[in-house]
Amino acid sequence: MPSVTSLTLAELAAGYRSGALDPRDVKAAYLEAIEARNPALNAYIAVLADSARAEAEASAARWQTGTALGALDGAPIAIKDNIDLAGFPTTNGCAFGPVAEVDAGVSDRLKAAGAVILGKLNMHEAALGATTDNPHWGRAQNPHKQGWTPGGSSGGSGVAVAAGLAAATLGSDTMGSVRVPAAYCGCYGIKPTYGLVSTRGVAPLAWTLDHVGPLAKTPEDLAILLEALIGYDAASPDAERVALDRTSFDPANLTVGHVRQINQADMHADVRDAYEAFLENLHMKGAKIVELDWDGFAASPARRAGLLISEAEAGFALSDDLDSRPERFSDGLRDMLNFGRTGPAAKLVKAERQVREVRRLVRNSFIEADVIALPTTPMPPFPFDGEHPVTQADFCAPANFAGCPALSLPSGETAGGLPIGMQLMADNGRDFGLIGLAGTIA
Amino acid sequence: MPSVTSLTLAELAAGYRSGALDPRDVKAAYLEAIEARNPALNAYIAVLADSARAEAEASAARWQTGTALGALDGAPIAIKDNIDLAGFPTTNGCAFGPVAEVDAGVSDRLKAAGAVILGKLNMHEAALGATTDNPHWGRAQNPHKQGWTPGGSSGGSGVAVAAGLAAATLGSDTMGSVRVPAAYCGCYGIKPTYGLVSTRGVAPLAWTLDHVGPLAKTPEDLAILLEALIGYDAASPDAERVALDRTSFDPANLTVGHVRQINQADMHADVRDAYEAFLENLHMKGAKIVELDWDGFAASPARRAGLLISEAEAGFALSDDLDSRPERFSDGLRDMLNFGRTGPAAKLVKAERQVREVRRLVRNSFIEADVIALPTTPMPPFPFDGEHPVTQADFCAPANFAGCPALSLPSGETAGGLPIGMQLMADNGRDFGLIGLAGTIA
Repeated sequence: MPSVTSLTLAELAAGYRSGALDPRDVKAAYLEAIEARNPALNAYIAVLADSARAEAEASAARWQTGTALGALDGAPIAIKDNIDLAGFPTTNGCAFGPVAEVDAGVSDRLKAAGAVILGKLNMHEAALGATTDNPHWGRAQNPHKQGWTPGGSSGGSGVAVAAGLAAATLGSDTMGSVRVPAAYCGCYGIKPTYGLVSTRGVAPLAWTLDHVGPLAKTPEDLAILLEALIGYDAASPDAERVALDRTSFDPANLTVGHVRQINQADMHADVRDAYEAFLENLHMKGAKIVELDWDGFAASPARRAGLLISEAEAGFALSDDLDSRPERFSDGLRDMLNFGRTGPAAKLVKAERQVREVRRLVRNSFIEADVIALPTTPMPPFPFDGEHPVTQADFCAPANFAGCPALSLPSGETAGGLPIGMQLMADNGRDFGLIGLAGTIA
Repeated sequence: MPSVTSLTLAELAAGYRSGALDPRDVKAAYLEAIEARNPALNAYIAVLADSARAEAEASAARWQTGTALGALDGAPIAIKDNIDLAGFPTTNGCAFGPVAEVDAGVSDRLKAAGAVILGKLNMHEAALGATTDNPHWGRAQNPHKQGWTPGGSSGGSGVAVAAGLAAATLGSDTMGSVRVPAAYCGCYGIKPTYGLVSTRGVAPLAWTLDHVGPLAKTPEDLAILLEALIGYDAASPDAERVALDRTSFDPANLTVGHVRQINQADMHADVRDAYEAFLENLHMKGAKIVELDWDGFAASPARRAGLLISEAEAGFALSDDLDSRPERFSDGLRDMLNFGRTGPAAKLVKAERQVREVRRLVRNSFIEADVIALPTTPMPPFPFDGEHPVTQADFCAPANFAGCPALSLPSGETAGGLPIGMQLMADNGRDFGLIGLAGTIA
């Protein structure tokens, strides 16, 4: 029998329903796994054993009395530590953080769905970076190779899923921060349509680009978690009523776009091979593959524009702390935020214009193609020690600029056996179609 | 028999169809009216007699051969001089401007609909202001009172409609520039849903807030013109596919919101009286009137945030000219644009955040109310000589922030007999419903 911590959300719910599993035992198994493996992996900043116990007990009672709240009731979930959970500090990956008085929108939703919240996860400092080499909380380790990055900024969220320290997790994604760790750790992650999932109570990085999204073992689990998270939240800073289109994509009747300018970008040979195999697989399943021309698009300058916007917006959002509690931040982060907030407005406008132009290119792509397929990152995981590539977010950022859903799925591996992720993007509101498609090609 | 220049677009089309009218005669009547009255009113920067003659002849031929292109075929239209028309300069209300090589998206559409384009209209310098006291092209005069402002920035567009110098016109609206002159001149104007009408080839002021919209004598004419203008233009900087909802609003089954924080704002007594009468009229027609609480909203600070964004975005967009052809601009405008583009990014981010918050308040209003009713401006027209109020755009800007359609209709007048405009806003995509509603309460 497989260990309890290898079960999916769907399997756990089935087990609870049949009585074969009990949320209290599952929670205990996860806390045990965390105790055993977290010291090496450093996925968690805080483990919430007491509240998790209470939640597991309540869930067990509901399952016993036939009043379970749905597929997430009793599910052991962990959340990135930039998401408010009432009664606990939100560090945002910084040296310390205020105790949250109220739940974030997504914490609300998880609790309403009966989830057992195991703890809060390590992340890149203030979510502004993609290695999770955190100066205050230490490095989260890639479960496939100690000393190598799990990606970021939601590094702990990827590690916890891949290492069996949570059945599924929440991350946040401003320029790829859900998808990069999903790719490096070898799990599934989706950045939903902008506005579909509330960002209320999530430490702001760049309001215009921020999203909360789930990471999970399977596409089915992504759908279960996303279903529980969605819904209009008038108090969310990005409150938009998103028109969901639940039509599924059929690989045999699908137009898949690949982007000339992405193909021309620098890419690790193993990633390029995996990408070609991915497109070939889609083609074999009946999809029509077309080349898209993102005229004028250059991935790195576009990503740098997004970074400037993040620095400026985060510099503004965190200005109270920057001015009065600068010791919350590392020197490097402080420099970035100060650079962002004091730079000339015209530079920010230029960056916003660039981002808008990418948005236009992406949106227009969905006239010609149902989905866009591209690697999640140009490179596979790399060692913490040594030079870090700067282009990690190059292929992820366009979906944040466009606001469209983008999913990373494990697809292939490096010569050294490390995971590689491929990315699928679709038009706004097609989130569930995208997840379903990932299920059919997995 | 009424003079030809008093006919609506609908009446002109009926006359062309029956043969009672000929586009060449109508064009001639308009050019005569322009010759007679424009020297005093200064609505036009350029009258395009030659191209208008050719267009009128082509239209006449189409009507004679039963190949007319629709209700706008032969319609004498004039456009604001920030809209490119191939072969003619686009001054953008500045000292001089480049000759446009290609048509703007909306010029394309007008030509495709068979319109006769009479000329290009005076406007506030670079569209950044609301009096149309233009330092390069002179003042456009309110046709109801010489020496008084027609509003702006699309001042010429309001004057031409109200004075019978064009059957209908196009303006642009970044923070009220279609609606303010419609209100002051006593005609109808609509700022459509963001992205519904292409802004390609329109001199950018603030891309994130810019809209092109029609001004006309009747709601029916607004609909005819808007119908010809709409459509997805992939090359427009604001290209968004807008989901139009053509459901009509029934006054007898309508919830009309008024906004507590607008009610509390400074308002001229005549405007306040007209507003009360407007709400009373809606109530008498069966509408339910509800108060909306835009918690935290203050109209003037919000408008100033929009102004800062406009200064920064326009400062960036016009930076080539600012650096190499500064003589295109007045000293005052140069100062505003330089202030905008060199200010610290954090200030711009703060303004963007404010605007976003207003967007949220407006969007959420449409959960409780079908439409929002408020005065178009806090004051009626005023003399050019003397102090100019700074709050003209206070009530218009929220619709630009929200991207939602907003229409100004004539409703009441001042003790001195000058027009007053009332504004109706609705949720995104409800443009035609809004126009229909204006028709039922006119």
